[in-house]
Amino acid sequence: MPESWANLGIDLLIEPAGRHRRAGLERGLRDAIQSGRLRPGTPLPPSRTLARDLGVARNTVAQAYAQLVAEGWLAARRGSGTRVADRVLAPAATEEAADAAARIRHDLRPGRPDVSMFPRAAWIGAARRALAKAPDQALVYGDPRGPHELRRALADYLGRVRGVRTTPDRIVVCSGFVQALGLVCRVQRGRGARRIGVEAFGLPHHRGVAAACGLAVTPLPVDAGGAVLAGLADADVALLTPAHQFPLGVPLAPERRRLAVEWAAATDGLIVEDDYDGEFRYDRQAVGAMQALAPERVVYAGTASKSLAPGLRLGWLAAPAHLVADLTEAKRLADAGTGVLDALALAELLTSGIYDRHVRRCRLVYQRRRERLVAILRREVPEARIGGVAAGLHVLVELPECVSEADVIERAARNGLAVEGLDAYRFGAVAAHRPALVVGYATPPEHDFTTAVARLCAAIGAAG
Amino acid sequence: MPESWANLGIDLLIEPAGRHRRAGLERGLRDAIQSGRLRPGTPLPPSRTLARDLGVARNTVAQAYAQLVAEGWLAARRGSGTRVADRVLAPAATEEAADAAARIRHDLRPGRPDVSMFPRAAWIGAARRALAKAPDQALVYGDPRGPHELRRALADYLGRVRGVRTTPDRIVVCSGFVQALGLVCRVQRGRGARRIGVEAFGLPHHRGVAAACGLAVTPLPVDAGGAVLAGLADADVALLTPAHQFPLGVPLAPERRRLAVEWAAATDGLIVEDDYDGEFRYDRQAVGAMQALAPERVVYAGTASKSLAPGLRLGWLAAPAHLVADLTEAKRLADAGTGVLDALALAELLTSGIYDRHVRRCRLVYQRRRERLVAILRREVPEARIGGVAAGLHVLVELPECVSEADVIERAARNGLAVEGLDAYRFGAVAAHRPALVVGYATPPEHDFTTAVARLCAAIGAAG
Repeated sequence: MPESWANLGIDLLIEPAGRHRRAGLERGLRDAIQSGRLRPGTPLPPSRTLARDLGVARNTVAQAYAQLVAEGWLAARRGSGTRVADRVLAPAATEEAADAAARIRHDLRPGRPDVSMFPRAAWIGAARRALAKAPDQALVYGDPRGPHELRRALADYLGRVRGVRTTPDRIVVCSGFVQALGLVCRVQRGRGARRIGVEAFGLPHHRGVAAACGLAVTPLPVDAGGAVLAGLADADVALLTPAHQFPLGVPLAPERRRLAVEWAAATDGLIVEDDYDGEFRYDRQAVGAMQALAPERVVYAGTASKSLAPGLRLGWLAAPAHLVADLTEAKRLADAGTGVLDALALAELLTSGIYDRHVRRCRLVYQRRRERLVAILRREVPEARIGGVAAGLHVLVELPECVSEADVIERAARNGLAVEGLDAYRFGAVAAHRPALVVGYATPPEHDFTTAVARLCAAIGAAG
Repeated sequence: MPESWANLGIDLLIEPAGRHRRAGLERGLRDAIQSGRLRPGTPLPPSRTLARDLGVARNTVAQAYAQLVAEGWLAARRGSGTRVADRVLAPAATEEAADAAARIRHDLRPGRPDVSMFPRAAWIGAARRALAKAPDQALVYGDPRGPHELRRALADYLGRVRGVRTTPDRIVVCSGFVQALGLVCRVQRGRGARRIGVEAFGLPHHRGVAAACGLAVTPLPVDAGGAVLAGLADADVALLTPAHQFPLGVPLAPERRRLAVEWAAATDGLIVEDDYDGEFRYDRQAVGAMQALAPERVVYAGTASKSLAPGLRLGWLAAPAHLVADLTEAKRLADAGTGVLDALALAELLTSGIYDRHVRRCRLVYQRRRERLVAILRREVPEARIGGVAAGLHVLVELPECVSEADVIERAARNGLAVEGLDAYRFGAVAAHRPALVVGYATPPEHDFTTAVARLCAAIGAAG
């Protein structure tokens, strides 16, 4: 084996030769990163060098690198080549990883609600009532879009709370936003789409989903007005977080909402509106869903992962009429529908008003937490700057001059606090930002919140 | 528009031109069949003619036809060209279809359990107990393979009841068998597989799933010994129903089980064992899973759809060690995991012994029904022949000479009885069989069983 390749510690000889080398190379690199043989930050050889060593086309290596950058395993910076990403966000796939998770005593990572507020009794009650009134027929293979009860309840709720313009027949209940995104990408790929524009700060998991559906993934710069849409020029699909950019926390500026819709109309493009936390705005009435501007150009996507619990794996799409048949067929081929018992329980929660009350209660808790967090940070580490609007479950904390994300994260970890840096969400060379933490203030249970925040301040202050 | 194409009643002008014509053509044909513009049995123009009319390559049309044959929309017979399939099995995707379903008063279609036996109270009880003891951490994003509690319970159960050789870390909990099959197909496609061999009688839905993952689908003839494996010569994956061929009802002969495993070992092939009803055998101890012969060559796939209810959308894989990482990643990209509440409830049912008792109760009910059905058929329509072994939830009823499936189905429908013909499951020119019905004796609730069987006999007898 040539030396430069041997240095990566990867054995490509086990892969089948010929046309599947790209997939084999991707798998080999992924395994090596997951297993720790390739450490975070390790530089990879230039694609030309590696291609020569392996005896494959340079394009094969370049494509494999691009795929792994999209998935978040690798990071590419202009002028400094390709490296293993500093922190890989793939969720714990092994029991060792679960053990590592158990060593975390305080958790301020974003993307999770306070699941200690999950209304266990109300959920079981709703499930019991829903099952009691469901006819036997509800338990067999049904509409791949999900039971009509839930689609009707969602159409009402989304119209009322988020201003979504839809009807029950345009709703597709999915196994979380991840599946919803995959269905849209697969359908659009089948209709000829080649490229999806995603915000240059965002979840690597979502980029991986789009890439796995065969779409090339292009970063859109993000500034104080949200995604910069000029980058959409050669895209067919755009994935946006208009209400509350994740993770920077800014809403998409009104003129950009209009621009996005105009782009879609002019180019026959499609926008996926990821409304992951649209129910949580604290300083004013929430901005309505962008979907209402152009229901035939925007797929609205929502989730119960933030309002109830990610483990439910319940999400939903409100789709343009012309996509419903294809999305239904894609869902049928993916899994023939999401589990009907959870769907009926959620419908019961929605129609009984319990869901609204739960969301209001969470909103109050998260608003107070946000205010406490911001007040304490301003007092304890006044050099840090708070970014984004008062909304959602996370806040961007820009670090003081000369403080690195990695130092703060490491110091926090030594004190049992898990926290994430902005760099973990960065995608592509257009993404540039002052070092920052993405602090999820919803994650810790109430009794632990004060301690977690104190350790956060210590980690930031002491690292300075 | 050229006349032959206009006759199909499809407007291809709305489709984008160029390289996506194949997808557009497939969608146009699918829509036309779904909407009823193309009636069952309608002959399609030869691919050469249609290609000329549309100004596309003949191969484009041929590939679109092949895809739709695999999905069950079209049927191809040697010497008689391509036609719209006689009966399209796609489940009700619209509310009109649901209305049509409501007009069925008696249902002897296969593939469903008697959901009136679904243990509603026991399920809610198990869900409540499982949720009460689950830590908060169980409600956030977890292992894409599913909660460890369920994987351990399944590994124990499958080992004990089906002889499956596996461990919890090799189990992947899926959203039904449909998703399980899709994950395996996608992973194998990514590893270079091109072609899957499927039994020439089987579910069109499953063929559609494999085709949607990019695999070419080849029919394997089925005879009294089950699938004929010679057809596997140029396949990379084989999908088999070894315990109880669906729908013919025969088990895979012992020497063919061995042959299949040898094929996989010799060619680096992979077998997917669809053990959809392996818990239900009435005349003897159930034959163990084929997976035990070669756990590194066989993916065992099971489901709660027959033992509990299809609407749960719960299935599972027991995978070879070398596929676990790829399947976990595919599951993460598909939906990040199946809903955890149902998974924990099922684990509770399994470990408490309630699941075993429920299956035993169902087994007795189905065994008695099968015996009654067979006895009544032998008495009322002695010319009909019963095929397959005493197992599962369906029986093959070979029709008397000169009785056509379509006549029986139509006569039954006029009496409010839904029943299916073998032809609906046929795939490819290698499939030849005497006309028969595939009678699902588990579907009707107990109080309706006698009436349903009486109408069945009347439909067969009167059609003669």
